[in-house]
This record gives sequence, C-alpha cells and structure tokens, in this order.
Amino acid sequence: MSHPGSAIVYESWGQRVVFGSGTARKDVAAEVTGLGARRVLVIAADGERALAEDICEDLPVVSVFGGVRPHVPAEVAEAVRAAAREHAADLLLSVGGGSTTGTAKAAALTTGLPVLAVPTTYAGSEATPVWGLTEGGHKRTGVDAKVLPRVVVYDATLMLSLPTRLSVTSGLNALAHCVDAWWAPRHNPISSALAVEGVRSLASSLPRIVADGQDVAARRDVLFGTYLGAVAFAGAGSGLHHKVCHVLGGAYDLEHAALHSVVLPHVVGLNLPAAPEAARQLAAALGVPDDPFGALLDLYESLQPPHSLSELGLAEAELDRATDLVMAQVPDSNPRRVTRDEMHALLGRACRGDTPTPVPLLPGKEHPDD
Amino acid sequence: MSHPGSAIVYESWGQRVVFGSGTARKDVAAEVTGLGARRVLVIAADGERALAEDICEDLPVVSVFGGVRPHVPAEVAEAVRAAAREHAADLLLSVGGGSTTGTAKAAALTTGLPVLAVPTTYAGSEATPVWGLTEGGHKRTGVDAKVLPRVVVYDATLMLSLPTRLSVTSGLNALAHCVDAWWAPRHNPISSALAVEGVRSLASSLPRIVADGQDVAARRDVLFGTYLGAVAFAGAGSGLHHKVCHVLGGAYDLEHAALHSVVLPHVVGLNLPAAPEAARQLAAALGVPDDPFGALLDLYESLQPPHSLSELGLAEAELDRATDLVMAQVPDSNPRRVTRDEMHALLGRACRGDTPTPVPLLPGKEHPDD
Repeated sequence: MSHPGSAIVYESWGQRVVFGSGTARKDVAAEVTGLGARRVLVIAADGERALAEDICEDLPVVSVFGGVRPHVPAEVAEAVRAAAREHAADLLLSVGGGSTTGTAKAAALTTGLPVLAVPTTYAGSEATPVWGLTEGGHKRTGVDAKVLPRVVVYDATLMLSLPTRLSVTSGLNALAHCVDAWWAPRHNPISSALAVEGVRSLASSLPRIVADGQDVAARRDVLFGTYLGAVAFAGAGSGLHHKVCHVLGGAYDLEHAALHSVVLPHVVGLNLPAAPEAARQLAAALGVPDDPFGALLDLYESLQPPHSLSELGLAEAELDRATDLVMAQVPDSNPRRVTRDEMHALLGRACRGDTPTPVPLLPGKEHPDD
Repeated sequence: MSHPGSAIVYESWGQRVVFGSGTARKDVAAEVTGLGARRVLVIAADGERALAEDICEDLPVVSVFGGVRPHVPAEVAEAVRAAAREHAADLLLSVGGGSTTGTAKAAALTTGLPVLAVPTTYAGSEATPVWGLTEGGHKRTGVDAKVLPRVVVYDATLMLSLPTRLSVTSGLNALAHCVDAWWAPRHNPISSALAVEGVRSLASSLPRIVADGQDVAARRDVLFGTYLGAVAFAGAGSGLHHKVCHVLGGAYDLEHAALHSVVLPHVVGLNLPAAPEAARQLAAALGVPDDPFGALLDLYESLQPPHSLSELGLAEAELDRATDLVMAQVPDSNPRRVTRDEMHALLGRACRGDTPTPVPLLPGKEHPDD
C-alpha cells in the first residue's frame, strides 16, 4: 500500500454497467424493464435526437428533452425537472456526451429520479457521482449518490461516428482521469489499480481508433478504459491536472476535452519526478520497463491531438493571471510543491505548444508522495 | 478486454471503507455518527466480546448479541432480529470474523438495518452483498444490496492476535477470492484488475506475517488484499474453486479457511493450462516473468498451510461421492471442461496432500477462456 502511515478512506458506488456492441436498443429495453420504469423522460441534444429515438423506439417514452447546453445552466436543469413533473416521469434516460449526462444528473439531484445513461463520447461523467450546475457564470459542483446513473449502457458502435479528433481528445480526457487519480487528494491503492488498467486499455486502443475509426473492438476498449478512469477519478478526487483544467476551462471557456489533452503531459512532466509510485504505475500501464514519460509522449505522437492552448483560444497575455488562478487551487496532496515560476513556465509551454518536458525537482523542494 | 465477442455486465456496490491501524475505536465512533445511528446493536462472538466492548465504549449501545455460530443458523438470525426489534436498534455493528459479519448481514436482509462491520479475520464477507442462512442442514445463499455493510472499519492492529496458522489459511482464503475471479461465471476485466492487485498485496504480505505476526504494516496489506479479493469475488461470482469448497464444506463440515487454502493450488493446477489470460495475470501479480504456478507453490512453501483434506477430516473413502457432488457444480464458464477422472484425481491429491500439479489439457478437450 502506498500510505503506510495514514488511514485510507475509500468510497465505492453502486452501479450496473453493461458493455456491448450494437446492442444499445436491446440492452436499454432490458434495463428499463429491470428498473421497473414506465414513464421515461429522454434527454438528448439535437445532434443525437435521431439516435435517441432509434434506441428508445420500444420504450414508454413520455417526452424528449433537447435543450442540452454545456456546463448545465441551472435553467436547463430546472426545465428538465419541470418536464419530469409535467409528464410524471419515473426515469431519466440520457443519450449523449458529458453535457447530456450532466443534465440528467443535475435533474436527478433534486428529483431523486433514477438515471439510465447511454454515453456517446468518452467523457466518463456517467460513472461518477459528481454533479455540476452553472448559475450566474459560476459553476458549482458536488458529490451525491443520487446523481450517479443507476445503470450505464455502453455500446461501442455508438462511437463509430465520433470524429477522430474528438475521439482522441475525449479519449485523452479519459486518460487524464486515470493519471490524475495517482496523486489526487483521496488517492488510494484501489483507485490507483483501476487507473493502471484504464491507462493500459486506453493506450492500447486509442491508436487503433486513429488507424481505423470503424474498429469496434478498439472503440469498446476505449469505453472500458473510460469507465475505469471515471471510477478511479470518483474514488480519488481532482488532482493537479483537473484543477488546472477546471480553472482554465472556467476562466477562458476552452474546449473541454481538447484542454485536458493538451494539459495532461505537461502536468505529468511536472509531477512524475516527485511521484515514483505513479511513475512505476504509468510504466506498468504503458508496458515499458522505464521512461514512462517518454512512452506517454510516444502515445501522444501517435495520436496527434491539439498541441497548444493558444489554438484553443488562450492568449499568451493571460499567462500571469492564469498562473495566479491555478496556484490558488494546487491540491495540498500534490506530490511536489509547485512554485509559481514552475506553474508559469508549465502554462507557457502548454500555451505555445512546446514539447512537454520533465521538470527536475529543486533541491529542498522535494515532497515525494511516499 | 478479455471478452471481445460478448457483452459484459458489471455491478459495483456502494460502500465506505476505512483502513487504519490502532484507530478502530475512533474510526467506528466517527462512522456511527456519520450514519446518524443512536441505538447500536453489537454482534460479537464470546471470544471477541472484550474487544467489541473496548471498541464500542463511547457508543450508544443498546445490546450485545453473543450467540454467533458458523454458517448462520436461521434461528440465530431470527434471534438477532428479535433483539433489534426489542431494543429498537438502528444499526447492527459486527465485530468478528466471517460468521459474525454473516450474522449481521442475515439480520439486515429482512430488517433493512444498516451494518457497520469491524473484521477481525481475512474472511472478506464484509465487502460482498452475499448472504447465507442455514436451515434444516441446508445452506441457502443469495445476493442483496441490503446486506452489504454500509461501512467497513479495518484496523490492522485487531489482527495482531490472530494465530499464524489462522492468519495463513484466512489469508489464502482471501487469495482464493482473487484467483477464482479470473474464471468465475461473471468474470470481467474490472474484477480481474482488482484481483491482480489483491494477489500482489497478499503474496507480498503473508510471508511477512509468518516471519513476524506483529508486523502491523504487513497485517494492513493483508487486509487490503482481502478487501480487493472480496470486491473481485462480488463482481465475478463463484468459480470452480469456490464450488469445490462449497460442496466439500457443506457435505463434510471441513474447517472453512483451511479447506480453501488446501484446495486452491490444485484448482489452479487444473485451470491454468486452459486459461492463458489468468496465467498472465497471476504471473504479473506474483511478479514473475513466467511459471506463475511454480511461483504460487513457492508462496505456499513459505507459508506452510495445511496440505491435505485428510488432516481436516475428509476420508479417502469419500472421494467417489465427493467427486460426484463436485461434478454437478462445475460452472459452465470454467476455462476447461473438467472430466470426472480429472476431478477425482484432483480431490485425491488434495485429500492425501500430494504436491499440486499442473494438469495438461487432453487433446480435443481444450476450452480456453479467450
């Protein structure tokens, strides 16, 4: 165990997960029956409406809510709740990416209605009890067992139309859930073990998707890694990577998955020299005897995600302010004490799209995680 | 993923787990408060009564139930329920091994009362939703979310007085939860990943306990492996090993943990030649490049558990009948088709205490798991 001196608290969450290929309609019907639901409120953005209608053809659907927006504005959640009341819904069925799942979760928070989630990206929100709501430009988040979807139906074939670039960024967002779990505030050996398996699955399957977007087995392995990463994240909490992305995403409205994919290797370069156990786990997961950081960069090279925050819309002139915002959020649990200069340099490299680099520990600044 | 062709269903369970050392009283008090309980019914066998009273000193205890018996006779469960009614208990707090935890779970099945479990062995029952009840000589088992303890408080120091032999057999019982998860009916990549980590933890810590029963860090690592094994078992179900032990234990009343520790390497010797993925996982978990079966035998050699079922009370004259009983229970999911001759020979070796041996596949009898 990685914390021989201190107590470990681990919280697991009850959820039923079905992984299939080409079986969404059948699996969803069986799970709706299993839940005893008779009045299903479907939540699906306009782009997924046809898909949702196809999946739900045989279900007792009372209404379809299409007004999904990013970051779950409070009025959107309230509109879903109103629709649920009006139609006496007994189940919220979400078909879509993170924003759609998040909308269902936010509605569940106050209604207590169960959620059945059918994900169409690798967002992972379907496997965490974390909810978010945006009101007056401010995003509140929280953890509540009520919002965790009771059932998730994954169908790898639903991902076949996901464009390569979004598959890559969304997949690297899932990878970030895994990696950050190794040094997040509640990091623990259980989440860490799931994260190892998640990285293993994602690293082996994402390049296959880039080579052939129609590779259903690869699509399913990415989903599996996504699920493991989300469970690891739910168990360990937000580490430095997620704090950086949360701050930058909130302050500058940067594209979610792309932001995560750009930032991750820079944070790994910063933390890995101070986190020997995480380095061991990353090496094991990537199947290399040593230099896990190099192996991570090789993976990135094979996937060609966006390289810079500037191409996502962050101006270099914002670096000072961004650094201040991030520094206020560095978790106490982080394996290295991060100086303002180090963070400023990191954000500069990420902004310009410089090659991520390991950041050696300054003498006297070590703060290893075990 | 190990099942590229078929759908996978995975069920996780919500539970809060605290791992500590020397902190049971404090942690239990905090968790009782967290659960909002005000009337605690303590369940503890006579041997653990003093320990239970010490742990519960500051709690609002309404009664202590001491009539714990193995395999949870129905009248014992009913007596606990009656005590809970009489004292208007709002929490069942079990302090003890598998029989004690099982008694609390059986009482929770019909009362719906939450359970807080404080384990004193490596039985693992505290981390599964499986209940058992014995009535008229027949043991019924089932799965119900209600019986899963809401909270488990592990305290490594509670294990310091566990004798070496029981530490070893109970620890190997935990190891069996892990190994069997690789080929159990609902085996899945998530349970399998947890099982790898569980084996890793148990294999590295059990020899340290044999060397020094007071090694608290080793005691905690065994608990951690125990927990992972139980979660893996809950996710994957009973494989061949557990079917063999369930049958033999039920028919011949053999000591539970010792039975598991004797049988495990024989079942591994049978299944491993037909389960290349399990072989890879066992090797990774035991930290060897190849020959995981040899590494398992080395582990056994270092632990010196009981070697034969005959020393547990099984007569060689029973082998024919025992084979018939077991053959009726071989799971369809088992990685190899097991012939009656193979099972008879296996039970013979286990009965006599012969060295476990790999059983080569017969040509035409292969049934690899992937």
